[in-house]
Amino acid sequence: MANPSKSTPRVVIIGAGFGGLNAARGLASSHAQVFIVDRRNHHTFQPLLYQVATGGLSPGEIAAPIRSVFRGDKNVISLLEEVQGFDLVRRIVHTAEQDLAYDYLIVAAGATHAYFGHDEWEPFAPGLKTIEDALEIRRRVLLTFELAERQAAMGAENEPLNFIVVGGGPTGVELAGTLAEIARHVLSHEFRNIDPSRARVILLEGGPRVLPAYPEDLSRSAEQQLRRLGVDVRTSTMVTQVEAGAVRAGEMRIVAPVILWAAGVAASPLGKQLGVPIDRAGRVLVHPVLSIPGHPDVFVIGDLASLKDEQGKPLPGVAPVAIQQGKYVARTIQKDLAGRPRVNFHYWDKGSLATIGRAAGIAQFGKIHISGFIAWLSWLFIHIFFLIGFRNRVLVFIQWAWSYFTYERGARLITGNTDLPGWSGITPTSSSVPKPEADKAPSASMR
Amino acid sequence: MANPSKSTPRVVIIGAGFGGLNAARGLASSHAQVFIVDRRNHHTFQPLLYQVATGGLSPGEIAAPIRSVFRGDKNVISLLEEVQGFDLVRRIVHTAEQDLAYDYLIVAAGATHAYFGHDEWEPFAPGLKTIEDALEIRRRVLLTFELAERQAAMGAENEPLNFIVVGGGPTGVELAGTLAEIARHVLSHEFRNIDPSRARVILLEGGPRVLPAYPEDLSRSAEQQLRRLGVDVRTSTMVTQVEAGAVRAGEMRIVAPVILWAAGVAASPLGKQLGVPIDRAGRVLVHPVLSIPGHPDVFVIGDLASLKDEQGKPLPGVAPVAIQQGKYVARTIQKDLAGRPRVNFHYWDKGSLATIGRAAGIAQFGKIHISGFIAWLSWLFIHIFFLIGFRNRVLVFIQWAWSYFTYERGARLITGNTDLPGWSGITPTSSSVPKPEADKAPSASMR
Repeated sequence: MANPSKSTPRVVIIGAGFGGLNAARGLASSHAQVFIVDRRNHHTFQPLLYQVATGGLSPGEIAAPIRSVFRGDKNVISLLEEVQGFDLVRRIVHTAEQDLAYDYLIVAAGATHAYFGHDEWEPFAPGLKTIEDALEIRRRVLLTFELAERQAAMGAENEPLNFIVVGGGPTGVELAGTLAEIARHVLSHEFRNIDPSRARVILLEGGPRVLPAYPEDLSRSAEQQLRRLGVDVRTSTMVTQVEAGAVRAGEMRIVAPVILWAAGVAASPLGKQLGVPIDRAGRVLVHPVLSIPGHPDVFVIGDLASLKDEQGKPLPGVAPVAIQQGKYVARTIQKDLAGRPRVNFHYWDKGSLATIGRAAGIAQFGKIHISGFIAWLSWLFIHIFFLIGFRNRVLVFIQWAWSYFTYERGARLITGNTDLPGWSGITPTSSSVPKPEADKAPSASMR
Repeated sequence: MANPSKSTPRVVIIGAGFGGLNAARGLASSHAQVFIVDRRNHHTFQPLLYQVATGGLSPGEIAAPIRSVFRGDKNVISLLEEVQGFDLVRRIVHTAEQDLAYDYLIVAAGATHAYFGHDEWEPFAPGLKTIEDALEIRRRVLLTFELAERQAAMGAENEPLNFIVVGGGPTGVELAGTLAEIARHVLSHEFRNIDPSRARVILLEGGPRVLPAYPEDLSRSAEQQLRRLGVDVRTSTMVTQVEAGAVRAGEMRIVAPVILWAAGVAASPLGKQLGVPIDRAGRVLVHPVLSIPGHPDVFVIGDLASLKDEQGKPLPGVAPVAIQQGKYVARTIQKDLAGRPRVNFHYWDKGSLATIGRAAGIAQFGKIHISGFIAWLSWLFIHIFFLIGFRNRVLVFIQWAWSYFTYERGARLITGNTDLPGWSGITPTSSSVPKPEADKAPSASMR
């Protein structure tokens, strides 16, 4: 262990998600030198990412520049670099650019979406983990309506406005619920040749129920709320093939211009690089003090860590676990430096909430199960409260109130190109838009 | 002319900038069928684009989906398509997808940045006309500081933090002023190894003064205000060569990781496609009723139109001209349909304003010339007032107030890749970050 009286100990933190950010915050007041390394310049508030993907919020509202968060903490140094590997013996982190020496290492590299060995599905079914992912999903969703409107305006039969969400976990459920809301309410009066409210949002879940991490009664309620929002929920439906513009589940083939992937996560490949045992999802098996076997100076936290609680139940890959682990590791390092003994990590489960869509959600606080509007409202306030930065909180609150009362969504931009994989192109019955007849009002072409 | 009693006349509008949007609005209450065709799905509020480029605002705050603007106007049909040409005899617009018949055509395709025949400069010196442009500029500016910090953290001499803005018109001046503000105030406390306030913003203007469209005293004032903000203003400096990471002006060569192009605009190539006389900048010479020779049913408005006022002075390429022309053409078409005579377009010059940076700007209202804080404040309120959508106005106002008082900028995300053309790569003197010495506080490495 480094001796604080001899030199300034250096803590290197990999990843500025909930875990890494809170570890760095916990050490911001210490006399350690802290490097926080991330391949992006911003912390992303992932619970609100689906709002960016569905045009409700702008990227800048749910992300904060990492160095801005630590602006006042002179001992925290933010580096925009990509970590490639470790030398745990020499205590060095290899990045693409340099070798970084450390006294303590905190690996908080998180997880990404996984395609169960079918990485070739990714271009056809993007997942939702980064701001870039969210913008790509937003582009595809909005573009689908535009292309269908064009097709219909040209007199062609427009392709089915199907949106498939693969995976009934929290991300899949909130995406499906919000897409249904957009189609039914937000866009319903904006098109002249197609009727967006006839769009179908199909949620495919391989297991027997949605939100399987919740108790059965809440799962059932979530499914009912989804159906009420207009989502076609299909449980026990395992996707066997994803193609450009279509999904196969056994014998069934569903055509859809937009397919979103929310079915699986895999831990960051950095976990494997540590050279210690990992679980099937690639998560590092950590000690109850969150360090790895043989290396008390190396911690793994958040979605990348695999740890069971006192009852033998694995800790879930959610933000509160990562936050508490980040804070815990910061305290542990400070204890080490002060020569005090480590204590085991204990997760304090304050309850869990999932949002489903407009005024729909579920919540579990111990034995108390809540569904519907109150659960949704709790979810909303808790998430806005934990957003980084006072300014962001105000902005997000205004947007939310505005879109709740007006059914408007402000950030509905299509940026980038206008191609859609699997869009079969336009096969108009006539190559020009005929002028309307004298007795035919323009709105008569609405179907 | 179409006879309203016989059929519904169709107006096709190309472009949803200030001109096209206002033309469509003016016809929204009419019985004409209006097609508004744009290759993007959103109207961009261009006067605030520089704020997106400099991380002050998010794209969603200065852009509005076109079909959202016309949500309540059932006779307005929005199409996401790219126009390729015209058949003025058969009254048809060719898009990439279809042929659109019209009774009236309004071409409001605007202008883009021009490199005076040196299109090969574009990758090295992006211009600022679209949301995508703004995001690319933001990426480059923020990345430069990150890469320099990494270089310095590794013990290498970081490259000069130079930012070159080519062109001293309104866009160049506001970009230069805002970049100086960011370097001096926003980022100044966020880096540990570089000192952002030592960044140099260099504004190169070929002519003898900045903002040449304004009276000389206001130009002089603008230059003084720029210098006060820390901008290195160099007038009568004609850029002769742009390379990756460097600009040549005669004998002088300035190295800069970021070069921004604000030097020239050229009218949309669609102007030429109309087959009528155009001026040197590609703008269409229009009649005083804004139609083109030989085609009273075809109007050209906004930046794409070339027209002189009653005093023989060419109308400037600014938003108020486009807005007034859009409204005028809508009225003219309604007059035609009602069988009433056309009157000539008259531009009502309400004055002009340019923003320079924090609390700096100039304004001209007839004989009244204003400089500094009051001009800036006028600019601010007028532009926020004219922003599309109440929600956006509130959000932009909050962001503005917040960043004015805190020197914070909220939308400082780097999205996309982390390459910078011309960045010479990292040549560290040592390939690893040495641990600090015992007696050396981390902040001692600040230069």
